Order: sequence, then structure tokens, then C-alpha cells
Amino acid sequence: MPKLLDFDRLSVVLVSTRNPLNIGAVARAMSNLGFSSLRVVNPFAASFREARSAVGAAPLLKRAEEFTSVADAVADCSLVVGTTAAQNRELQQPLKDLQQAAPLIRKRIGTSRVALLFGSEKRGLSNDDLSYCHWLLHIPTRAEHRSMNLGQAAAVCLYELARSGRDRGGDKSSQIPEPAKNEAANAAELERMTKLLMEALQASGYLKPQAAAAKEEKVRRMIRRLGLTADGAEMWQGMLRQIVWKLNRDR
Amino acid sequence: MPKLLDFDRLSVVLVSTRNPLNIGAVARAMSNLGFSSLRVVNPFAASFREARSAVGAAPLLKRAEEFTSVADAVADCSLVVGTTAAQNRELQQPLKDLQQAAPLIRKRIGTSRVALLFGSEKRGLSNDDLSYCHWLLHIPTRAEHRSMNLGQAAAVCLYELARSGRDRGGDKSSQIPEPAKNEAANAAELERMTKLLMEALQASGYLKPQAAAAKEEKVRRMIRRLGLTADGAEMWQGMLRQIVWKLNRDR
Repeated sequence: MPKLLDFDRLSVVLVSTRNPLNIGAVARAMSNLGFSSLRVVNPFAASFREARSAVGAAPLLKRAEEFTSVADAVADCSLVVGTTAAQNRELQQPLKDLQQAAPLIRKRIGTSRVALLFGSEKRGLSNDDLSYCHWLLHIPTRAEHRSMNLGQAAAVCLYELARSGRDRGGDKSSQIPEPAKNEAANAAELERMTKLLMEALQASGYLKPQAAAAKEEKVRRMIRRLGLTADGAEMWQGMLRQIVWKLNRDR
Repeated sequence: MPKLLDFDRLSVVLVSTRNPLNIGAVARAMSNLGFSSLRVVNPFAASFREARSAVGAAPLLKRAEEFTSVADAVADCSLVVGTTAAQNRELQQPLKDLQQAAPLIRKRIGTSRVALLFGSEKRGLSNDDLSYCHWLLHIPTRAEHRSMNLGQAAAVCLYELARSGRDRGGDKSSQIPEPAKNEAANAAELERMTKLLMEALQASGYLKPQAAAAKEEKVRRMIRRLGLTADGAEMWQGMLRQIVWKLNRDR
């Protein structure tokens, strides 16, 4: 069984959830399965903390953190994973099934904070929400009926994370300490780099001002795909800051 | 993925369920995960077939079979498994956790019908209900908060059954193909990008001309670490080319 300390490093992030009962249901599954950090972004009902469906999880729900943007909600996370039913949409990011995804998330929460995003009941995560994600996760479901209930999808994801934690028990290789690797850049660092690159692209004329907003999601996804370390992101920020300064000075 | 035919041999049996929404939620998870046979024993509400929570699972719910006793509901099953939160009760039957239980159930549905019983939201299965079971199954949960929501517990059990089916290999048809992965950028493309970035760093004043040669290796390594695809490298080259052009024009 994984240490609870590790599970505390996973934040379940609910974006624009419409039904407070669903927030309560997610909180209950978290409490059942040993997870503690719930974050909500722009929930439709301010009353969600009293959700009746949160049997036994009222304390967790009371401690839930509220945010007004996905960027803020994931700022301290070094890995951001979006959940999707993977239907009717051209996905721009790598898609992993839950069973592949769980060990990757488990490993990362051993050292830093991870965000697991769930979208609204009706529409799921928007393309803008998805642009903050390093990769996407889906639960294998029937092609004829892909879309799961929010509380059930969260329960299944958390069960698999707890399960894959247990799986590691027998695996000798995981007991060998990894060579100290550089920490992954967190979402706030990547977002700063995104903003700087956007500035450079506009100041250089690569992006016309009127087209910039439409391209921002694409640039954000491109930056996430680079898999930067904290050091790497810092170096890129330094380079871009200088380039932006020079482009603007010469204007 | 196991053959659907096999999954049709698993009957989910809900005993004395109080809330029709929970019956709907179980039906939805069954439909998502490929199970078709739902049986209900003495539900509190006769109206359960219209449960709003059964998004996409109305046909399954309409076909649900109704019984007045557990004995009748499991009569045609060669294995009867009860679910329990395993709290506050002396259990008379062997107890297996879900991960141990799933392969046993999977094997049995290859040849004959299996019943998976869930009790009422408030009390779970009674000792009388449990007496029809060959053995009991529980989902590993925190000792401080064992009892899961009915719809979530059913979703987790069915997910594990489908998962253990996939573990056995076989039919991949229900798995979503990965989006065609882009080829990795080749060394020539990466080198062009390295040169362009070096030019941008010098033109912006980030690197002094006399220091540039010494830093080139560092920049080259940094670019290689990005793991760019051919498309990604091309996009970066386009951006950098424009930035370099603009920096030099304004000089």
C-alpha cells in the first residue's frame, strides 16, 4: 500500500462542475480510497460544501480549495493530467488508458504534486482546459457508450491509482533508488514560459495581434510536450525574457 | 478484452436498493463497461426504470429483471458473490479483495452464470442475503471510511472485472487507437533549430559573441532533451527564424 503522504500530493481538480451532488460523490470516493486534496474551479453551485452525497467526506469537502481558473488550480503541480471520454474530438495530446497512466502518476506523486482534472458533466474539459495538461487519460469503455458519470469515473481512477500502488509491493526494481533526477517544471513555470514565448512571437511579427489569442492554446500545448525540468524551464525563461526585451526595445 | 458474450453471463443483483438514482447509476456503469444483465430484488421504488441518473443506459434499465427474493434472483447462477464493506460484522464466509476476486469471477463467466450482489445503501447485504453467497468481495478502502457509494462501488468492481479481462490479452477492438504518433525529429532538423536559437541568443544580447562558442554545446544538449517530433521541430524553426529576422532587422 502506498504511503498516504504520497496520496496527499494528488489534487483532484473539478472544473465547472454543475451538480453539487457530483462534487460530494467525488469527495466520498477520495475519502474512501485515501486521497485528501480536492480543488474546484468555478463550480456552478456555491453550496457544494454541503452536498448530501458526500457521506463520510464532509471534512474533506470543507477543506476543498476554490479557484477561478485552471491555471491557478494547477500552478503548483509538475504533472497535469486531463480525463476525457475521448469521443467526437480531435485530441491534441497523447492519450493513455487508465492502466498505463496510473503507474506514471504514482511515480510522480512520490516527489511532487500532480493534478488530475475532470470536466463538467455535460461537456467535459474544454480545449482551453486541456491545453494545461501534459497528457490525457481515459477509462476504457464501450465505443457505444463512452461517457461515464463523474463520481463513478473519479472512483475508478482513484481505485486504479491505489491499486497500482499496491502492485509495486512485489516489484523489486522499484526498490532500487532512482538516480537523483532533476525535478519536473511545475505548471506555473510552464505558464510563465508560455506567456514569454507568446510575447516574443507577437513582438517579432510571427503572430499578428488579432490571431494571438487563437494560437495561445496551441503554444501552451507545445510547451507542455517539451517535458522540461525546473532548471530547463528557468533557462528558457531567461533566454525568452532577453529576446522579448530586445525585440521591444528596438521596436 | 474479454468477449461480450462472457460479460453477459455476469448478473449484477441489487438487493433492496432504496434510491432509484443509484439503480440508474449502476445501470450506467454496466453499460459503459460492457455488462448487460441487471437484476433487482425488492427495490423500494417501483419507478426505478425511469431513473434520470441512467444517462445512456435506459435500454439496459428497461430490460432489468425484477425478483421478490435473492434465492430466485440467483437461481441460475453457479457462483454467487456478495459485496461488503466488511465493517462491524462477523463474516461467516471467505472474504477476498477485489483484485483477488476478479480473475476468479472472470474464469467462471467463461462457462456459466455468476451473480454479483450489492445490498441496500443503508445496511448492505443482510446475513440472510449473504447466506446465498459462495464468498464475499470487498474493495480495499480506508479503515476510517470503508463504506462506498453504491454506484461507485459497482463501477469499481466492473472496471476491475473488465481490467482483469484485458490483462489476459486477446481482442483489442474496444481499445481506442492512439493518435498516430509523430515521427521524432532527425538530427539535421535539431541542428538547424540549435543554430537558429544560437543566432537569436546572440542577436538579443543573451550571449556575448565571445561566449557564444562555449555555450553552443549546452544549447545543443538542451534542444536534444526536448524530445521534439519532426512537426514540432519545424514549428520551432519557423518561430525562431522570424524572431531572428526581426532582431537583425531592428539592429
